[in-house]
Parts: sequence; C-alpha cells; structure tokens
Amino acid sequence: MKTIAIVSGGLDSVTMAYKLSGHWDLHLLSFDYGQKHIKELKYAAMCARALDAQHSIIDLSSLGELLKGSALTDDSVIVPDGHYAEPSMKATIVPNRNAIMLSIAYGVAEAQGAHGVAFAAHGGDHFIYPDCRIDFAASFAAMQEVALDHLNITLMAPFITVDKTEIVKIADDFGVPFVDTWSCYKGGEYHCGLCGTCNERKEAFLLAGVADPTVYTS
Amino acid sequence: MKTIAIVSGGLDSVTMAYKLSGHWDLHLLSFDYGQKHIKELKYAAMCARALDAQHSIIDLSSLGELLKGSALTDDSVIVPDGHYAEPSMKATIVPNRNAIMLSIAYGVAEAQGAHGVAFAAHGGDHFIYPDCRIDFAASFAAMQEVALDHLNITLMAPFITVDKTEIVKIADDFGVPFVDTWSCYKGGEYHCGLCGTCNERKEAFLLAGVADPTVYTS
Repeated sequence: MKTIAIVSGGLDSVTMAYKLSGHWDLHLLSFDYGQKHIKELKYAAMCARALDAQHSIIDLSSLGELLKGSALTDDSVIVPDGHYAEPSMKATIVPNRNAIMLSIAYGVAEAQGAHGVAFAAHGGDHFIYPDCRIDFAASFAAMQEVALDHLNITLMAPFITVDKTEIVKIADDFGVPFVDTWSCYKGGEYHCGLCGTCNERKEAFLLAGVADPTVYTS
Repeated sequence: MKTIAIVSGGLDSVTMAYKLSGHWDLHLLSFDYGQKHIKELKYAAMCARALDAQHSIIDLSSLGELLKGSALTDDSVIVPDGHYAEPSMKATIVPNRNAIMLSIAYGVAEAQGAHGVAFAAHGGDHFIYPDCRIDFAASFAAMQEVALDHLNITLMAPFITVDKTEIVKIADDFGVPFVDTWSCYKGGEYHCGLCGTCNERKEAFLLAGVADPTVYTS
C-alpha cells in the first residue's frame, strides 16, 4: 500500500523514510518554499534513489514573498545561532508550514489512492513549533476525515513522541547514510555547527553515542 | 483590519469580496492549480482592481500532474455536462482543494498579521464537495487554532448556509459587475452553458429574478 511521505532531506525525515520503506510503497514529497537551505532537496532526492521510491518536488516558491519574516526564507532576517530552547529561535518559524505541506500531501494521497501520509515532526520540535505537536497531528487528521468524507488515509507521525537522540539511534539501526542528510538552516557548503538545527544534530549524535560523520564549519 | 480572501474570479467569491470590502482591508488570494478554466484568474484580478485590494496569485501548477484524475485539471477527463446533483459531477472534485488553499491562506494571514481568512463555499456545493460543508469549516478552523497556537485569525465562510440564488441577489445588492465574473469549468471563449457550474449559474439568475448578462454558447 502506498504512503505519501514528506521528506525534506534532513536527518529526521530521511530516517522516517528508511523506517517506513520496508512496510509501504513510498512516494516522497519535498517542498521548495523559498528556504535558504534549498540544498536539502538534493538530499531528499538521494534518499528517494537509495530507497527506490518515487519523488516529487512541489514548487511553492511563489509563496516565499508572502511568507516573508521567517529567518528560513527572508534574506533580511538572519538565521539565529543557539539552541532551540531560546526565544530567538522563533525566527525560524515558517508560518503554517506543516498544515500547508500536509494538506498538499493529503491531496496527492487522495488523487493517487494512497492509504497513508507521513511526516517527521519529533518531540524536540514541540517547544517552539506548535504545528509539530501531538494535538496538532490529531486535529489535522480529524479535519482531513471531514474534508475528504472518509477514513481511508492514516496520518503517521512516527517520531512525534521521540527526541532527536532516539532518531539518531533508529537511523543507525536502519543504516541511514548520515552524510546523505542535510540539517543546517544556513545552507552553506558545510553544516555551520552554530544554528539551532546544527546544535541539535551535534548533541543528538553525542547523546546517542553514535559517531557523527558530519563536517561542521564551527 | 486585514483579511485574506480566497477569490477565484467566480460569481461566489467575487460577491464575497464585494460584501467584505466595506469592513475589511482585503488581500485577495487566487490559485493556479492547473485548472482548465485558468482564465478565471483574470476575473479575480478585475475584482481586485475594482475594490482597490491587494492581489496575489499562488502558483501551484507543479501540483497539477500529481492531482490528476479531476475533470478540472486532467486533459484526459472531460468536464461533464449536467447538474451538480448528478453522480457524474464527482469528476469535478479536485482532491483536498479547499484544505490546500485555506492552509496557504492561513500561512499568509499569519505572516502578514491579518485577522481573517475568508472563502466562498456555499450551500449548493455541499452535495458533492465535502470540503465545502459547515463541519469542514468548523474542523479546519479548530485545526488552525492548534497549528498556530492562538485564536487571532477568524475563518469566515459567509455563504456556507446560503444557496446560489441568494448569492445572485446579494451580488445584485452590492452592484457586482456580473460580466466580470467567470464560472464555466471548460474555460472557453464564452460560458458553455452546459457544465454543472454553468447550469447552476443560469438557474440562480432565473430563480433570483435578476437579469443574466452572461453570454452562453448553449
């Protein structure tokens, strides 16, 4: 049975794809929403090739100008360095991103007769991103049942109660090629090692006791 | 205060814009999702000019191929003639269209500090389009409150309990220029007069007792 999996090319979503690929016929969906780290999409494509999965990139770049104000999409807003727990990290919110991506994924699932939609929000995201929380996933799934007037598509969020350290361990178990995943919000040649997602990535490898092959600038 | 209004260029959404424009600072949002009647977007632009409202077109054309199977987007599926009550009209469903458009509208509203999102689903749509029903609107608004973690954006669906005949009367009251609205799903030079939305348009003028200036081919 087919599942539409939202895969950005980051560690979490690539690991999710590896985890689901033994059980589902996966169709990976990635989004160009004008993010500075657009290079992540190359890593999503690598994941699709490795898993022999269909891959589509949805071009939402015309939305970029309208969603301005986020550090992830707006050149006038600098990507903050630090940890996710800091208030400055709110600058990395892209307004309503998960609802937008999930509603498109459900549309594709409905059109293609898929039985699942999957996204890789994880426990560590909850603090600053409301659209990564359990109650969001539940509310979104309920809305989709009404919108489509059936219960044939299941929303999967396999990491929503799991932290990043656990994801690194799961990735290690599934043999995810860590160097073929991209986290850094700055989208430079190498991971910056300073932004929220770089700090989280570094720390997760350390706490998981898994060797981190990532090249960091700092 | 600002409202993001989804306006296709059809009679319903243009009338909604006229109705709201006295009360809200409107930003009209239209969508290119690969519809055959893409010419409707010119009518949305006319509406924006007439009301001196901001207007943005979101390019979702990369979704077209993935949402194939609908008569509205797929060249291999003919737009059915007849009335909405007929089962054949299900061919005109674009999977999850309203959830996709509304989630984007909420993202734009959040980014721009708007206090409302409006869409023009009406009572006559309920029969075949589940995402035009009252329970969908309620469920969607509830989901967005969770997704954004606040209640600052109100979902408006002013025609959701109103039929098309009533909309024609309201349009007449507000002086909507009927010839500057487009309904026909076939997107030809003139309204075909035979498809579901043309039949509904014709009938609504007749029942409302309002002169219909639309040129129909049949």
